[in-house]
Amino acid sequence: MSLDRLIDKIIKTNNPTVAGLDPKLDFIPDFIKDESFNKFGHTLEGAADAILTFNKGLIDALYDIVPAVKPQCAYYEMYGWQGMRALYDTIEYARSKGMFIITDGKRNDIGTTMQAYANAHLGTVDIENVQEKPFGGDALTVNAYLGSDGILPLIDVCNKYDKGIFVLVKTSNKSSGELQDKNVDGEPIYKMMGNMCEKWGNELKGKHAYSGVGAVVGATYPQQLTELRQSLPHTFFLVPGYGAQGGSGDDIKGAFDKDGLGAIVNSSRGIMCAYKKGNYEQADYAMAARNEAIRMRDEINSFIK
Amino acid sequence: MSLDRLIDKIIKTNNPTVAGLDPKLDFIPDFIKDESFNKFGHTLEGAADAILTFNKGLIDALYDIVPAVKPQCAYYEMYGWQGMRALYDTIEYARSKGMFIITDGKRNDIGTTMQAYANAHLGTVDIENVQEKPFGGDALTVNAYLGSDGILPLIDVCNKYDKGIFVLVKTSNKSSGELQDKNVDGEPIYKMMGNMCEKWGNELKGKHAYSGVGAVVGATYPQQLTELRQSLPHTFFLVPGYGAQGGSGDDIKGAFDKDGLGAIVNSSRGIMCAYKKGNYEQADYAMAARNEAIRMRDEINSFIK
Repeated sequence: MSLDRLIDKIIKTNNPTVAGLDPKLDFIPDFIKDESFNKFGHTLEGAADAILTFNKGLIDALYDIVPAVKPQCAYYEMYGWQGMRALYDTIEYARSKGMFIITDGKRNDIGTTMQAYANAHLGTVDIENVQEKPFGGDALTVNAYLGSDGILPLIDVCNKYDKGIFVLVKTSNKSSGELQDKNVDGEPIYKMMGNMCEKWGNELKGKHAYSGVGAVVGATYPQQLTELRQSLPHTFFLVPGYGAQGGSGDDIKGAFDKDGLGAIVNSSRGIMCAYKKGNYEQADYAMAARNEAIRMRDEINSFIK
Repeated sequence: MSLDRLIDKIIKTNNPTVAGLDPKLDFIPDFIKDESFNKFGHTLEGAADAILTFNKGLIDALYDIVPAVKPQCAYYEMYGWQGMRALYDTIEYARSKGMFIITDGKRNDIGTTMQAYANAHLGTVDIENVQEKPFGGDALTVNAYLGSDGILPLIDVCNKYDKGIFVLVKTSNKSSGELQDKNVDGEPIYKMMGNMCEKWGNELKGKHAYSGVGAVVGATYPQQLTELRQSLPHTFFLVPGYGAQGGSGDDIKGAFDKDGLGAIVNSSRGIMCAYKKGNYEQADYAMAARNEAIRMRDEINSFIK
């Protein structure tokens, strides 16, 4: 019913970072793709198989030092239902290794439809009294443009299954200000949305300072990160935009509280494609990912502790 | 690159309505479920099989009189990748019958990630120079909380594949005003979002008055519907909230222009569950759906023409 399990893992690994699993085919070493395409042809099934193999290698290399993975749904949906099966299998594999799974779906709808998304990604579905688990993540990113009707169904499911959500507040992209920075009653919308997270979070209190309702706040807006950390003491942050998108260690330090908690920083391309940057063979992509994860952990810790 | 194909079909069938395909198990007649569960057990696969059979029956009953279907992704995702396969098969079947498909996913993200969603639902993906079609809808509902970075990747894909989008503007739910009604620079956010649709639509002009960038505006807010119809002359509306959610024929008439065009009204439960209301056997669920679709068409036409 909160993000306690995530926070406990961050403390245990001394690592406030999450590895994004956005497996574009371009990111995957040739030897993996060749094997999958030999088996299944250049098909959605072949692409999905390559994704899964790549992800498993990354998870094997990261699970003891990185607390969480964040699969981005779009890169699985892009390969059809076959890709969605690879999402399911990736989540299962990460869970079997003890990782916390943040499903990055930015889902949004209302009422029973939102409940369907909540059950799909965080809960179970009832099939005439048999409970089945559709995807099985631990937290889901969501978009609250539709208001409380889109969030309250998630709160129920989080309470029931001990899960959490991250609401889009201030996103890392350049045009995020077109709506999010506009002033409403003298305050920017991202701040209003942040305040709603605090309110919704009252229903999902945790043992640490933070509730089960987190917020997505981009590394590319360090001033807003700092300001929101101060005004939202119970809202845990998921911070995209570090590394490839331009956010630095100095930029993200404001996301953390005085104990070095309060946020988890995502890196996707930086970790997945680490082998392309260093002096690595393709076969060593997992080792390269591990080395980059360690470098990132140490860099971020040097700024926040 | 626009919604022309949809508008042409609306004119041809003289029917500005879309049948929502939100196949909750509760909506499906027992004889269909029994057959699927006998074959596959009470599993995600069994549920997905029942959904597909139900949908095919509805499509068979509707395709010559209703221009479009709107599958709601959440009700397929709820049954895992097996459910997503049923979504793919439903879309394929509806297309084979000549229907226009609005995939209701309310997807949102930025840059290459949004491009992945666009290709997933409206385009094709490149698998080492082989093009595959992941889901294959004709239009996708999207959420623009992230600004232009989340919309422009869709415009490219719509241009390339002759597809369209519907951006959430003023949603039909009770709490939609928590954000959407707030004033920014003296105008409510839904109006600002509507104006952005007009702007984005300049890149996707059609042969009718309307562009490929539509807007979702709920039947439950008749005043806003009327006001937005006047201020957004090139933005086609997808109108949820009719029937089960409380919107009446009188409520939606403001969504239409002087030629009776400009909007398509959705009914999901009303059509899918028509057999539960009238004096029907479960076996006649498709006939009941057809009768309700005709009644709805005639009711709406009586208000707008």
